[in-house]
Amino acid sequence: MVQYIHTPFDASFAALSDATRRGVLEQLGRGDASITDLADKFHMTLTGMKKHVGVLERVGLVTTEKVGRVRTCKLGLRRLEEEAAWIEKYRQLWDARFDGLDEVVEELKRKESLDGRKG
Amino acid sequence: MVQYIHTPFDASFAALSDATRRGVLEQLGRGDASITDLADKFHMTLTGMKKHVGVLERVGLVTTEKVGRVRTCKLGLRRLEEEAAWIEKYRQLWDARFDGLDEVVEELKRKESLDGRKG
Repeated sequence: MVQYIHTPFDASFAALSDATRRGVLEQLGRGDASITDLADKFHMTLTGMKKHVGVLERVGLVTTEKVGRVRTCKLGLRRLEEEAAWIEKYRQLWDARFDGLDEVVEELKRKESLDGRKG
Repeated sequence: MVQYIHTPFDASFAALSDATRRGVLEQLGRGDASITDLADKFHMTLTGMKKHVGVLERVGLVTTEKVGRVRTCKLGLRRLEEEAAWIEKYRQLWDARFDGLDEVVEELKRKESLDGRKG
């Protein structure tokens, strides 16, 4: 049985699975912006942009603050460390797996070549 | 206007946004497995596991091969390189942004301290 632990990765990877939301994160990485600015930049309605910002806010990737009529968005405290670590761990497993296959192929080639010499 | 390019990240991050699918990838990183094995390990119906494997297969994270009645799953050729690179780029933006904020806070503290001395 595999240990199956529900992690907040579900929500963060889902938040990253949309090109507009990734674009918003990159944009906020360059400077804070209002919802209106973001809606303009991504050619989107205010309502549509509010939904995307809401998804990012719920997973801690964005924080917002309303001053007067303007809601300003900033990068949140989440730095995607665990997500980067998961992907890195996966890539190590992947490398080990494919290195293993390379060795099997090499071994088969060596045997074939030896059999060739015998015959 | 921000350049908005639709990338296959949408599908790969969505594929990673489920704990069972991440678990399947880790499991296949340790060795190939049949759909039945995977369904057993994750306490899931065959139909449910087939759906998850289908999602992973469509984005190139898994390949499957049917021999007789058994469909064997292996890791696909996709190594999540671009996804790792996107997250790394984001973390650099994040670091720069928060370092910037640290400097503003330090500057404010210095001014406060100078004002304190003057007063």
